[in-house]
Amino acid sequence: MRHTLSILVENRFGELSRIVGLFSARGFNIESLSVAESMEPDVSRVTLVTTGNEHAIEQIARQLDKQVRVLVVEQVTEVKHVERELMLIKLRADSGEQRHKALSLALLFGARAVDLSADGLIIEATGEWEQVNALGEMLKPLGVVEIVRSGRVAMSKVSRESSESGGQ
Amino acid sequence: MRHTLSILVENRFGELSRIVGLFSARGFNIESLSVAESMEPDVSRVTLVTTGNEHAIEQIARQLDKQVRVLVVEQVTEVKHVERELMLIKLRADSGEQRHKALSLALLFGARAVDLSADGLIIEATGEWEQVNALGEMLKPLGVVEIVRSGRVAMSKVSRESSESGGQ
Repeated sequence: MRHTLSILVENRFGELSRIVGLFSARGFNIESLSVAESMEPDVSRVTLVTTGNEHAIEQIARQLDKQVRVLVVEQVTEVKHVERELMLIKLRADSGEQRHKALSLALLFGARAVDLSADGLIIEATGEWEQVNALGEMLKPLGVVEIVRSGRVAMSKVSRESSESGGQ
Repeated sequence: MRHTLSILVENRFGELSRIVGLFSARGFNIESLSVAESMEPDVSRVTLVTTGNEHAIEQIARQLDKQVRVLVVEQVTEVKHVERELMLIKLRADSGEQRHKALSLALLFGARAVDLSADGLIIEATGEWEQVNALGEMLKPLGVVEIVRSGRVAMSKVSRESSESGGQ
């Protein structure tokens, strides 16, 4: 089963290395990882997606929680949450018709062009993993040359009272 | 100076840990990091933002490039590129007026609500680091309770011929 962990950690040398190492030492593959500043100075937010059985994830979450520099560990998958990803897609669309097709598809997905030239364009899309995946696949026949994804970020929903109903 | 590296690496146990460890062992602080699937199966794309002098970054890029599982190391900051970030902002806006203000601000920044309830909302914004930062700051007086960022993703522009003019 896929799990998303959201971790607040003091931003010190080696701390990220320790967290990532904890997963690889136990044979967990990290599917996606995002690390960026949080609202607090010197505190980073780590969003990590991994697969494994619930018991093993529980264990690793507890172990993370024990580390001095780790402030909060949240298993986002266990509550109602929003999960989003950013994707940049570069297309070498060198005819006006191809560019038009690509832009029309992007529009359908609520995506937009962030770079446009006579040689092609870069489209920015956000959405759930499956959504951005689908757009990437649909654009491929138009000449996708590069895709860069942010990895997933997740946030528990505003009304958490109803979280017992599970999942999003 | 701030540097953005884009790295393609085989997705194997411990590989990410090794890359992150290489930076922390040399005393580099990682400002942001994104790891996600690339277009190739079993190959991950790592986008890493760090600060340091050009010479030290050159050295670490060369050292990365030598690793067997590392396929490509690109110093995106050295070419014309697009750099974007995804931000989720949770607001406990419990009056209609506050929600309306928050949504109007979001609209100004090309952002959108991805969760909305009587207690508040979650806004999704994308843009350059400074842009999403600015939106986060402007929303704070309306009751921001949580911010989650993806870290930066970057892509060289479609027309790279003009890259010698430097920067974005």
